[in-house]
Parts: sequence; structure tokens; C-alpha cells
Amino acid sequence: MRQQGINAFITPSTDPHCGEYVPRRWQSREWISGFTGSAGTAVVTLNDAALWTDNRYFLQAEGQLKDTEYQLMRLGLEGTPSVQDWLRDKLQCDDKVGVDGWCYTIDGINELRQALNPWGIQVMSVGDPYNEIWTDRPTIPDNAVEIHPMEYAGETARSKIGRVREAIKAKRADATVISMLDEVAWTLNLRGTDVDYNPVFVSYLFISTDRAILFVNPQKLSEEVVRYLDFEGVETMDYDQIAPFINSYKGALILQPEKTNVNIQNALKQGVLMHGDCPVTTMKIMKNETEIRGYHSAMLKDGIAMVKWMKWVVPAVQQGGQTELSLEKQLLAYRAEQPLYKGESFDTIMGYGYHGAIVHYEPTPDTDIPVLPKGLLLIDSGGQYLDGTTDITRTIPLGPLTFEEKRDYTLVLRGFINLGRAVFPRGTYGSQLDVLAREPMWKYGMNYLHGTGHGVGSYLNVHEGPHQFRMNYMPTPLLPGMTITDEPGIYIAGSHGVRHENTMLVVNARLRSYDHHTPPLPHDEGAGQPADGLTFGPYYQFEHLTLCPIFTTPIIKQMMQPEEIEWFNAYQQMVCEALTPHLDPETADWLREITKPI
Amino acid sequence: MRQQGINAFITPSTDPHCGEYVPRRWQSREWISGFTGSAGTAVVTLNDAALWTDNRYFLQAEGQLKDTEYQLMRLGLEGTPSVQDWLRDKLQCDDKVGVDGWCYTIDGINELRQALNPWGIQVMSVGDPYNEIWTDRPTIPDNAVEIHPMEYAGETARSKIGRVREAIKAKRADATVISMLDEVAWTLNLRGTDVDYNPVFVSYLFISTDRAILFVNPQKLSEEVVRYLDFEGVETMDYDQIAPFINSYKGALILQPEKTNVNIQNALKQGVLMHGDCPVTTMKIMKNETEIRGYHSAMLKDGIAMVKWMKWVVPAVQQGGQTELSLEKQLLAYRAEQPLYKGESFDTIMGYGYHGAIVHYEPTPDTDIPVLPKGLLLIDSGGQYLDGTTDITRTIPLGPLTFEEKRDYTLVLRGFINLGRAVFPRGTYGSQLDVLAREPMWKYGMNYLHGTGHGVGSYLNVHEGPHQFRMNYMPTPLLPGMTITDEPGIYIAGSHGVRHENTMLVVNARLRSYDHHTPPLPHDEGAGQPADGLTFGPYYQFEHLTLCPIFTTPIIKQMMQPEEIEWFNAYQQMVCEALTPHLDPETADWLREITKPI
Repeated sequence: MRQQGINAFITPSTDPHCGEYVPRRWQSREWISGFTGSAGTAVVTLNDAALWTDNRYFLQAEGQLKDTEYQLMRLGLEGTPSVQDWLRDKLQCDDKVGVDGWCYTIDGINELRQALNPWGIQVMSVGDPYNEIWTDRPTIPDNAVEIHPMEYAGETARSKIGRVREAIKAKRADATVISMLDEVAWTLNLRGTDVDYNPVFVSYLFISTDRAILFVNPQKLSEEVVRYLDFEGVETMDYDQIAPFINSYKGALILQPEKTNVNIQNALKQGVLMHGDCPVTTMKIMKNETEIRGYHSAMLKDGIAMVKWMKWVVPAVQQGGQTELSLEKQLLAYRAEQPLYKGESFDTIMGYGYHGAIVHYEPTPDTDIPVLPKGLLLIDSGGQYLDGTTDITRTIPLGPLTFEEKRDYTLVLRGFINLGRAVFPRGTYGSQLDVLAREPMWKYGMNYLHGTGHGVGSYLNVHEGPHQFRMNYMPTPLLPGMTITDEPGIYIAGSHGVRHENTMLVVNARLRSYDHHTPPLPHDEGAGQPADGLTFGPYYQFEHLTLCPIFTTPIIKQMMQPEEIEWFNAYQQMVCEALTPHLDPETADWLREITKPI
Repeated sequence: MRQQGINAFITPSTDPHCGEYVPRRWQSREWISGFTGSAGTAVVTLNDAALWTDNRYFLQAEGQLKDTEYQLMRLGLEGTPSVQDWLRDKLQCDDKVGVDGWCYTIDGINELRQALNPWGIQVMSVGDPYNEIWTDRPTIPDNAVEIHPMEYAGETARSKIGRVREAIKAKRADATVISMLDEVAWTLNLRGTDVDYNPVFVSYLFISTDRAILFVNPQKLSEEVVRYLDFEGVETMDYDQIAPFINSYKGALILQPEKTNVNIQNALKQGVLMHGDCPVTTMKIMKNETEIRGYHSAMLKDGIAMVKWMKWVVPAVQQGGQTELSLEKQLLAYRAEQPLYKGESFDTIMGYGYHGAIVHYEPTPDTDIPVLPKGLLLIDSGGQYLDGTTDITRTIPLGPLTFEEKRDYTLVLRGFINLGRAVFPRGTYGSQLDVLAREPMWKYGMNYLHGTGHGVGSYLNVHEGPHQFRMNYMPTPLLPGMTITDEPGIYIAGSHGVRHENTMLVVNARLRSYDHHTPPLPHDEGAGQPADGLTFGPYYQFEHLTLCPIFTTPIIKQMMQPEEIEWFNAYQQMVCEALTPHLDPETADWLREITKPI
């Protein structure tokens, strides 16, 4: 930093493609801080160091930063300064803050400048310092790229590129650069293995009204893939040619400022710069019929694996000798038996007892603990199958439970049910529904500091946006074809955690009978204003894609309302009927017993 | 318009004080269009005329605009152009749009200019054309101003002005102009009669760090009021001196752009202009203990009047000869018996049968219909009492009901209860809770296109913001001391309407027992981030201020959940106990019968 004349350097947890999970090469924030969570920002000045992360990782970060120079900054808590405020305090007028422009978004650097420039502090893109100081830094992966067949994708790359071109033209632009790896993979029907859990590959995709160019290390492309790309009308250039290419581009280039690194924007010298949303984002979240059929298939297989594991786990724990890691290993084995299985969709969260209260706890040999036949085990996991991605959480009663464990189990279940059985008119977005999952526990003074749900990709990233269930304002209406999880929780530090999670699909609602129903007002038909959700329909609801029972023994039935019980019993019954034909008789018996109505 | 060289003129429904209800002098939009609803914008070009209003007034406006040149523009419906879009279509480059800068906000004119200037259309403040064309235009009222005594206000004007000064200093400004009439009235503990239903008076209040000047017609001030103002440290100047005074002001003046007319801003020539929220807005909505005591007193009186009327109305209708207006007259008579009663808090909505489906129907001799002993009567009304303002809606079963009437009655009641018994952590705002009132009816494909609740003033305007229950994003957290109504509805055009409404107070929550409750996470205490509502508390709930039973005969009990029934019975019981000591034995018996548990 002294050589470069900068007084502070910011290392975010992202990469040139603004990813949540990033290839090891760009895990510089983990390398410089030792904190391994998926979200965090490390800031180093000449005298101080601090790391910001969110509530999912507070406990984990406390542990990993202990005895380091890093001060932990808990995002979202009152009194926690923002990175900008902290820098303003630590630095002086004429000081300089450095970032790597490949790993910082256009929006990100603009926000920094807006906050710091008025105080005389400059923000500069100084290149990637980890090239020098991180001596054993991993290279950019050159793993092979695979074609994602039409039988799972449901739409050709050529057709998707055509739709992107329509969107570009509608905005009166000439071209765009797609940086997000899942958006490139989705558009081209290609998959890779460059990032843990996310089947993507490092690349940029340039699409103009007459060209489509994939910027990628050519070693990653087999002859078959090269022929395929040619057939779909896609040229290829080397990954590091993106900046020179943009440099010489003369058209109107539209970039999404929160999803594009600032060096891409800075490379544009001769063309016209425009800002706008990437059209692929909204195309990708509306699943086509083939993808929906794939989810059903993947969820069936995932349910079979989960049921086998759930039947196995309680007696196994009773026999003794199990740990969080041994239980995880067995679940992976059951999933691996399933056809088209490609791996986990994220690092399994297997939290026994007090580990369940660490929202994103992932057991390692260092943290692994024995699992005993009492209390609760929280298991949040998912699989990548060629035909779909799954994400499921169940909380397993392993033996005697305390009153608090049962009560929290029931309160979370009520929230899960109330959100999961919601019906809502066109235009409604997730932030407006989020409270349905929280209200039952709020009445007991309980809350959770994470969102309640996220989109799930189709053999792609397990986190897919922008739609979500959150208290925060995020006005993306939920529309038929979108996937979203429903996952409220309660976490009692040092004691236990509960979370129930299904992956769901937005579908047209089956409304309750409204006999002799007169339309409410003459302007009923087609009314709607997406921004505020005030419409007379059509109405939507959620189809629960996840096929896996929920244990009933911890439920305190008196705390539940009849409508909730009715929904719950129907869900359990549906799971039982869907899975039974695919189970051996013993497992089918077990499932029938487990899913008996409460 | 031709004389002034303008091609279009916009007449909003507001006045120089950005009020919702305005003195007759400024009801130019009603005069020019014939539409009498409280919200609407008339736009006249040399060839066309159009009127925009919201769903509360769709049916009414359809009726009043029939056979006029005006085209009705239904705000919020798909396909309805905004005023700007419509003007862009109707006008050409170099055309000019005129507005009266006294009746147009800073934000409003900026928005117009942003939308129209790129198309070469200019927006000009052209003075008030109604001075010339509206020959019998009413004058600015010179009604007397009254002191609102400390026993109802609870804080002196001097103290409030002191708090405004603190807020001005905190923003590094020197002064502000308060334009909203209820904010002037609240700050000075003065009331007037210039506006129907709102006890306010036409004036501006200038507050600087060392001066407070009320700009008001001096004829409105008695010697007592002049002495009072002098005692509280407030000077007075004539109403029309506001512009010359601002013209010569040299300090930093902070104005709220959405609540200040643009001529006030344009008057500032020598000072520094700043934009920011008016501090009085948030001070006023946090009721002090005296005001809360006043609400309790006013609600008791209002409940007594309502119960007397409810006991009277059903037999009166059975006897025959009643109309909507005759029922309204009797209710007013019962309210007028109550101590400290000053008048209605808004024009009574008394909608029988299909009139109940017109959200803001106010009967007039032209629309009045006979009320028969069958079907539903929707009555939304409120009183102004010196000690508080009330707002209540009840739907009255007058005899045999259809299945649909009962079902809608029950669905609205469920929404009313679910929102009304909500518990929520600090930081939660109304838009996040709104869905609780809608979800039960959404399951039947029903919705209502209005907000679910608004703040209520303390012997002031019945609509008080900015907090509210709405689907639209409005991130003002609900905090103890705020009042808010809970008023979902269902409206079946041509048939019937149902709405239930109570006025409520935000209070600290009584949480359900959570035995042996461990704090959820170590950073529990004082956590909180108002913007997204994700906190661990403290928790709040609503105290229902309104003391009036809800008829139980239309309720389809099987459609309700036990928790809802439990809450409802407890509310009815509370009302019975509170009102009984103040009722004659016969009315008390009637109330006991009506409030029996379902």
C-alpha cells in the first residue's frame, strides 16, 4: 500500500463477475482475513483492519477473527458504522483508498466516491495487489465447459440470445456485456465447474444486435463445445481480450451498474455508455415448462434421498458414534445414488444442538461434535441435478426435547405454513408477504435476522434473484414460473436452532369457492399496477416443489390454528403419495407413519 | 389560456397549504370539473379535458362527469396514462403548460418539468386564473382562531417551537416555513374553522432560530389570541406578507419540497435554499400523554353515541320511512349530545346496499335512497371533540342477508382482526403489515384498492401521515404514541359494501409467555435498523381506541380461526365493560346482548 501511495485497501468477497460464490483465485478476502463466510468485506488501513459481515456469520466471524488485528463489524446492528463512515473516521483529507477495479462494481465505486470525495478522500482503482502478495494464489480454473442439453434447458441458446437482442433494441442500445457467470451459463446452455456448488465457468458474454462473443479461456472448450457455439451463432475470444475488445467498441453499450465491474465500464472509450438492467436476469427466473418438469424430477429424487436419510438418522444416532460430519457423509451418499446427481448445491449446514443456532454453520473437522439422541439437528442442504437444483431445510428431533425446542419448532412451522399457503394478486412482491412468516413468532417476541426466501436456479446457482422474501423493499413481483424458498427460523444462541425450508414455485391460484361471485368492480379485468400490488387479480399461490416430510413429534398442536393444521396434513399426505411408489416397502411404511395427520 | 399563451392548465385539488380538504376559495378543481371528491386533478387543454382520481372515487366521478367534456382517468389501473404522459400526447414541442405556483408543490412542478421539458414542453407558473374566471369565488375565510388549551394539547407552543428550532439547528439551517395548516395549528396550539371538518385556519408559520412569525389575516385574531401569541413568543404579520418577507430573508431556509408551494420557494432571493423534512410532521404524530388521555375520553363519548345510534337504527329502519340522510341526521344528533363535541371529522359515509360499494359515498339529497330492513348499511364517520378526533366504520345488518354479504362481512372481519392484533418489532412500518388485513380475502380472490389505515390527529385532521398501512412502500416505522386506523373492506359493485374500522394506538406489546426465555442472540439489546424492520425488539402492538361493538349476526363462524374468535370476543367484552357504566339500563342491556361471545 505504501508503494502505491494508498492509505486503505478494500477487499470485497466478490470476483470480476460479481458472484456470491467465487473461484478460489478470487477468495482474497478469505486469504487476507481468515474469515471463510460467503459474505464479507475486509478493509485494511496502514494502522487498522476491520471486517464487515451480516448476521448469518456473526458467530462464525467472532470465532475466526479472534486473536487477529481485525475488528468485527456486524452489519445491520445499530451503531455499526458503514465501510464509508469507518474510512472517513480513520483517514484524513487527501488520503487515498484503493480498490481492484476488476472486483468492484460500478455502483460500488460510485457509492464510495459519493461518500468519501466530499471529505477530500480519493478512491482509486489500483489493480489487483494479491497478484504480488498472495504467492501461492490459485490460477483461474481451466476446467472443461459442458453443454446443458435441450431436454433440461427447454430453449436454445440462439433463441435466448434473440430475446436478449430484442431487449437491447427496446432500450435503444446496441450491445451489452453479461458478467454474472450464471447469466452467461443460462444464456448459452453451458455449464462448468469453476466455482464450488455453482455449475458455472469463468467468462464474459458480449451480445450485440449482430454478434455474440464468449470471452473464455479456449482451453476450457472441447471441439464439441466449439462446434455447438458456432451452431448457436456464438463466436469466442480469449478471456483477457474483454477489455481490449470493449476498448475498440464504438456502439451504445448498456451495462448494469450493480452487476458489472468498473474496469469493464472504464474500458469503453469510443462507444456510448448506457446503464440499465440486464435482460437475462428476469428471463432466467421465469422457468419454462421443461425446467419446471426438471424441478419435479429433481425434487422427487432429492425427497427419496432425504427420506432414506431421515429414516436412517434417528436410529443411527441412538446407536452412538455419529458426528455432524458422519451424518453429512451419509446424506451425500444417499444423494449420490440418485440419477443425474452432480453434487451439492451449497456447503451442507448440519448443526447439532447449539450449532443449529449458527445460521450458516458448516461443520469442519475442527468444529465437528458428537450427535447425541436428544435435542434438535438442523440440516440445510441441496443437490445439483442435471434436471434441477434443490434447497431444503429440516429440523430433526433426535430424542427428548425441551419445551423451548418444541415451542420454537412449532412457531417456525406456523410461519413456514402461513407464508407457504399464501394467495396473492398479481403485482405482489416478496417484501409484502414476508411478515406472514414472522407474525406468529413476533407474538412471542422472537425474530430472525435473515431473509425468508430466495429464488433457486435450474441446475444453476442456488441463490437467484432479484425476487425474494425480505422485510427490505425489493419490488420484484412474484409471477408464475418463479421459484422461491420459504425458510423462517428461530435461533437461540448456545442452545438450539430451528428452520424449516421448502422450495416453491409460483403458480396460478386455486381460489376458495366464492359462490355466485360478482366481479368486485367493473374495471376488474386486467387491472393491475405492479409497483404497489393493488390489483383484483389474477391471483397466484405457491406449489411446494420440495417432497420431504416434516417430523411431527415436536409440534405443540394446541399452538396451531385449524387452517394451518389442515394445510400441514395435506402437505404431508401429498409427500407420502408422491414418494411411496419409489421407496422400498420398509421405507414406505416408515414414511406413512411419519406423515400421519396430526 | 389563449391570452396567457398557454396550451394546457393543470388544476390540482389542493391549496397553497397542500391540504387534502381545502377552503371553498381553493376548490377550483371542483368548480371547473363538477367532480366533488376530495382527490383529483383536472387538466384542460385548448381542445381536451380530463380528470384523474383514485379508486375511492371511480364510481362517483363516473356519475359526476357523465355528459361533460371530461374524460375520467382512473389512477392505478393499467393503461391509465399519468398527467404527464397524457400532456405529452396532447401537446407539441414549444407548447406551454400553466399552473398556479401557489397551488403547486415544489416537488410537483419539478416532476412535471422533468417529464415534459425533454419534449420541448415548458411548465410555467402563471398566477391564479380563477381570480378572473370564477366570478362568485369565495374569499379567504376570516373566521376567528381559538386557543387549544393545555389540558388537551399537553405541551406549550413555546416548547414545541423550541423543539422545531433544535431540529432546524441540527440540519444546520436557520429557518423554516410551515405551510401545512394542521402543522401550524398543532405547533401553536391554535384551532380554526376555515376548512370543513379540519379545525385549522389559513396561515403560514415562519420559525427561525430567533423568531417565530404567524402570517395570518389579523381579523382572525382576538385580543386574547394576540396576547397568547405574544406570551408564547410568536409575532404576527399579514397573510399576504409571506412572499415579501421571504423575499428579504437572508438566512438558510429549509423547505419540504412535497409540502411547500413553489411560490414560497421562488420568493427566496437573498437567502440559501435547503430541502428537508418538516420536523413538525414527526413531532405531531407522536401523541403525548395528555393527548392519549384525550383520545380515551373522546372515544368513550363517540362509542356512547354510536351505541345509542346502533340500538336505534335497526328498529327505526324496520318501522320504515328512513333514508340514508335521515339515519345520518340521527347519528349527528347523538354525537352532538356529547360534551366537547365540535362537529364531524369528515363527511359521513352512509351507504345503504349498493351505495356501500362506493368507497367514499356521501349521501346528498340527489342520491339519497330509502333504507329497508334487509341487507347491509355501511357507516364510516367520525367526530371532532376538543379532546380528540375519532374515525370509525361499522357495517350494520338491517335484516335478512345474502350468503355473499355474510361471507364478505366475515372475510373483512378476519382481515381487520389479523391486522388489529398484530405484534411487531421496532422498525416495522405499515407497508410490511398491510398484507395481514388482505391475506384472508385474497384466498377468495377478493381485494380492495385503497390503503388499510392512516394516522388520526388530536382534535385535528382525521388523515395524518406519513405512517400508514398500505401496500405501497412508505418506510415510516410505527412507534408507541402513533395513532392509526385499521379499515379493510370488500366492495361488490351494484350489490353491497363491507368495511370495519377502528382507530388504534401503537403501544408496547404484551408478549405471549415465552417461559425460560433465553435472549435470541448476544446482540439482542438495543439492536435495530429502522429501514428494514429486522430487529429483536422491543415489540409493539395496537391498543384499540375505538369503543364500539361489531354486530355478530352476519359472522360465519366456521370461516374464522379460534385465535381470531378469541380476540374478537375479548374486544367485544372490553367495549361492553368500558361503555356500560355510561349507558342507561336499557341500552346497557342491549349492549350486553350484542357483545355476547360468538
